[in-house]
Amino acid sequence: MGIEYDGSEFSGWQRLNKRGTPERRHEPTVQAAVEGALSFVAGGPVDVVCAGRTDAGVHASAQVVHFDGPAGREPRSWVLGASSRLPPSVCVRWCVPVTDDFHARFSARARRYRYSILNRPVRPALQRQYLSWERRALDAGAMHRAAQALVGEHDFSAFRTVHCQAPHPRRQLHEIRVIRDGEVVAVEVQANAFLHHMVRNIVGSLLLVGRGEHSESWVGELLAGRDRTVAGPTAPSAGLVFLGPRYPAQWGLPVEVELAEAAP
Amino acid sequence: MGIEYDGSEFSGWQRLNKRGTPERRHEPTVQAAVEGALSFVAGGPVDVVCAGRTDAGVHASAQVVHFDGPAGREPRSWVLGASSRLPPSVCVRWCVPVTDDFHARFSARARRYRYSILNRPVRPALQRQYLSWERRALDAGAMHRAAQALVGEHDFSAFRTVHCQAPHPRRQLHEIRVIRDGEVVAVEVQANAFLHHMVRNIVGSLLLVGRGEHSESWVGELLAGRDRTVAGPTAPSAGLVFLGPRYPAQWGLPVEVELAEAAP
Repeated sequence: MGIEYDGSEFSGWQRLNKRGTPERRHEPTVQAAVEGALSFVAGGPVDVVCAGRTDAGVHASAQVVHFDGPAGREPRSWVLGASSRLPPSVCVRWCVPVTDDFHARFSARARRYRYSILNRPVRPALQRQYLSWERRALDAGAMHRAAQALVGEHDFSAFRTVHCQAPHPRRQLHEIRVIRDGEVVAVEVQANAFLHHMVRNIVGSLLLVGRGEHSESWVGELLAGRDRTVAGPTAPSAGLVFLGPRYPAQWGLPVEVELAEAAP
Repeated sequence: MGIEYDGSEFSGWQRLNKRGTPERRHEPTVQAAVEGALSFVAGGPVDVVCAGRTDAGVHASAQVVHFDGPAGREPRSWVLGASSRLPPSVCVRWCVPVTDDFHARFSARARRYRYSILNRPVRPALQRQYLSWERRALDAGAMHRAAQALVGEHDFSAFRTVHCQAPHPRRQLHEIRVIRDGEVVAVEVQANAFLHHMVRNIVGSLLLVGRGEHSESWVGELLAGRDRTVAGPTAPSAGLVFLGPRYPAQWGLPVEVELAEAAP
């Protein structure tokens, strides 16, 4: 199932309590909202497994989950039934039946994120839910060139939060691009998987390069040094959108979450 | 002064009460917020005149206002001072001193609006504050061709709400374009000025053409018939953004609100 959400009002993807127990009032999670809606449609408890957990305030255009539901329901019924029970900030975009060996997390070969920064003297009013803000002029070209040092398989400890629970810090970064479109500078990045806070920590360091406070070669040096404490700060959550995982074509999922031919 | 706002939480631009009296709690207006912030910076009451009033829920990327303020304050002080007193949904983008003969409304030679429609089976979650939604497939090409009948100087009574207070219904429509970008169909339109609800009423009729319920020639027939009661419904406010007025170059305003050379 493909899910879109505005993370502004959520304390992240991951359910904090045991399923079915009430959420703490100020800590709603996307997972609990989705499971609640699916349980209603299923007429019984449903647990979901997602492709990539997102933090508080982070959005998703194509989160993917798998779950076991009762047989005989049409995909369309799941989409419409769940969407009608979800808050306005969450919707179900599609639902496709898969075989038991599909796993939303382990079957994914890549994940994509976009981080958007409004670069002008004044804070955003329009689109502020989806932008971070940098008032100093950014050199997007320098940020792009600096970021290319991250492409390939590396130990990304320099960009990993201390709270990260991944068993090891090696990830394969497929592509990273920094593009300016008017007042907005966007960082788009794809990797086989990401460490906790990895995108926001990479963006935090690229911002220091974009502002001219560090040279373009600094990002590669940070990577090699594997020391989180000398890298840039974690960029704010609002600018980040999970563009979704990518799966091999064998699963027959919508093209938006299908692995491109050229990717590894 | 150029002002950007997210209209979602406002009951429109225009202040409902006498300035300085408290707003009704559920009817905050952008004008009252702006005047409150400017009065704080000025150290005394400030009234503003805007280029184009917007309805409840309508956004603006470049509303323009003029006001009389105490002499000697730098434009930068107005921008920063006012922005710091405004809610997150409103900001001041620029401030330029003008001579007494400038008038935000009467000096404007054109206004531009953009209306954005998400065209897919499922309602929006991301960007829902800035989109209306049409689940049936839209033929953007047909909408664009139908809209061309509106270009020129016409009596736009067919697209004017009964509540419109304008002295006459004639307007000069400079340009209208309907463009699809993926799942979003955008209508961008410029005229010397607009009647109340004119953009949303035009979009409401174009949607019926896009869905194939009326022929492309219907919009021209509606215009000629001048009968609001047979045209399409008023499209929802959320999709509408006021892209701002356009002024002759003589005023020395930022290029984003300057009249293009080619325009009349």
